[in-house]
Parts: sequence; structure tokens; C-alpha cells
Amino acid sequence: MEPVDQVLSFIVEIEKLKDIQRKTRPVGLERYENSAEHSWHVCLSALLLKDYANEDINIDRVIKMLLLHDLGEIDAGDTIIYSSETQEVKDKELAGFKRLLDILPKDKTQEYMSLWQEFELGETPDSIYAKSIDRVPPILHNLYDCGRSWKENNISKEKVFNLNSRIANGSKVLWDSLKKKLDKAVENGVLK
Amino acid sequence: MEPVDQVLSFIVEIEKLKDIQRKTRPVGLERYENSAEHSWHVCLSALLLKDYANEDINIDRVIKMLLLHDLGEIDAGDTIIYSSETQEVKDKELAGFKRLLDILPKDKTQEYMSLWQEFELGETPDSIYAKSIDRVPPILHNLYDCGRSWKENNISKEKVFNLNSRIANGSKVLWDSLKKKLDKAVENGVLK
Repeated sequence: MEPVDQVLSFIVEIEKLKDIQRKTRPVGLERYENSAEHSWHVCLSALLLKDYANEDINIDRVIKMLLLHDLGEIDAGDTIIYSSETQEVKDKELAGFKRLLDILPKDKTQEYMSLWQEFELGETPDSIYAKSIDRVPPILHNLYDCGRSWKENNISKEKVFNLNSRIANGSKVLWDSLKKKLDKAVENGVLK
Repeated sequence: MEPVDQVLSFIVEIEKLKDIQRKTRPVGLERYENSAEHSWHVCLSALLLKDYANEDINIDRVIKMLLLHDLGEIDAGDTIIYSSETQEVKDKELAGFKRLLDILPKDKTQEYMSLWQEFELGETPDSIYAKSIDRVPPILHNLYDCGRSWKENNISKEKVFNLNSRIANGSKVLWDSLKKKLDKAVENGVLK
């Protein structure tokens, strides 16, 4: 197969991300979000919020990480963040990502694997910021929908604050804004 | 309102792109594609295919264009490419994009408007390549689904070849590969 045809096969295979259902609904919609449209949303959100990053970041690398970051879910499925950070989930996602990369010409995969692993480790300014942005839409979805996903999944306010306060690692300005909105949700009884 | 809160409002508003229905179905799915997941798909496709661009391109600018390129559809809706290139459609999309930008802090909008207009004009190497990539998924959707959207919308093989041959402006290698697949679809009676 010609290299360009291998890439086109990959482009077809990754369409499966459009069928991976997440745990929150886009604002205003009754259906659950899928991981492909979420990926677009976080890439654009990262671009829009880049000036609020704590450290100097390379937004182009951040966007590439976020374009790729959920591909492992095609084989592993989506797991709510509050229970996704186990070695088992991480291993499944990595295996799924590797299976996909095998479809591509070999000389193209190293860059993608490096970006994927950097995101997963979350230790560099770019990946710390990318991970912060990845947390934003689910919070907004809940805030605009009476905490529906928090309720459906029995997520307490302690869990919400504990897990999401790490947004401040990527952007203090962003976390300050979201924290105010979350405090209001607690006041209103939306988040308990 | 704080600038960061204006950006968060924008991030919520653009979720509406997840509810804009396109005219083809993702490979393997019975439902129509939406413009948000399509946007992710073309951004990643552009990255994957960048080495096949005819000219030197800045892939980071291309990806930014493609992240933004369909936002005008939130107000204007999606129109099949074969009838979308009218001034009326273009005006509606531009008005829709401007309405969205009004939500953002003023100092952030110029970069996005420039990228949008560059894509729309399609005269630079980056935008010519971006427009080529934007054409790829609908072709693949049809090829993998017995030409379903072509049939549903009465699109002849002459129209398909006329409109899509411009992919060669961005990438000759890519068009050569797709043309072979389209020729086979004609041979098989999938494209008439």
C-alpha cells in the first residue's frame, strides 16, 4: 500500500472516536457528547485561553496533543475522570493508541507517540496546560445543566474540587474563574 | 465581565457546532456527522497529511484555520459543498462568525478573523491546503458507504470530479490517491 493510502486508512479508522460516548452532555443538547467533538472543543478552547497559561507554552504543541489525546479511547472506551486514573485504564488506552499507529507509515509515528506520552505524563508546561484545558468543558456542562452528570455519577463537591483544583497548575486565572462558578453551584445546591 | 469569563462564554456558545448536521455519515455510523467532530477530523487529517502538501505550509496555521472554519455554520447551518459556494451562504456564515467574535474580549478577535478570511479566500498555500483537506472526509464517507450521500443529493460523477479535483491544488499526491479510488467507484457503479 502507498504511504498516502496508509494515512487515509488511519483517517478512516479514527472516525470511530465519533462513536465514543462521554459522560456529559454538550450545553443545550439532550444527547451525550462524543470524544471526537470534545477533542475539537478542547483544541479550540486551548487556543482561546492560551494567554492565561501560567508558564510560557507552545500552543501549537498543546493543540497537537489535544488532537491526539483521546484516540486510545477507540479501543478502551471513555471513563469518567473521577475513576479513570488507574493503571489498567492507562494501559488499555496506550495499547489502543499503539494499534492505531501501526496503521500509519512507520516514519510518521514517533512524533505522535512522543506527544501522546508527554500528555499522559503531564509533567511539562505544555502538557500541564493541555490537561487543565481538558477539564474545562465537563465543568461547564455540569454548571449549565444543574450538575446532571455529577448527580448521575454520584460525584460529591469534595471530589469535584479535589480533582479540578489541578486546573490551577496550568492556569491560575482559569481556575479562579471556574472556582467562583463552582462555589456558586454549591451555594445554589447544584453541587453537593 | 472579566475577560476570562468572556472567553468561557464563547467556549459555551460554540458548543452549538455539535448540533450542526452535515450531509454525510461517519464511516460505520448510521447518523449524520456534525460539524464539530468534522472539525476535529480535518485538523488531525491535515496534520497527518502535511508532508504531501505541494508547497511549504505552516501546519500550525492550517490547524488553527480548520479549528475555526465551520463556526459560521452555527448561525448559517451546513450546506452541501456542491451548492454552498454562493455569496448568500458566504455572507450568512461571515455574519455568524462575527456574532460569535463579539462575545470575546476585543483584543483577541483580530487573529481569528484574519485566519477565517484567509481560509475563505483560499489564495495562500496554507488555506489552499486546508481547503483540500476539508474535502477529504466527505469523499471517504461516500466511498465507504456505497455513495450514499451522492445518491441522496443527486450528485453526478461529473460534479464529484469537477469539484474535488481542486484537492490537487493543495496536494497532488493526495488527489492522485483519491482519484484512483473514485475511478474505482465509477467502475463499480457506486458513482454515476
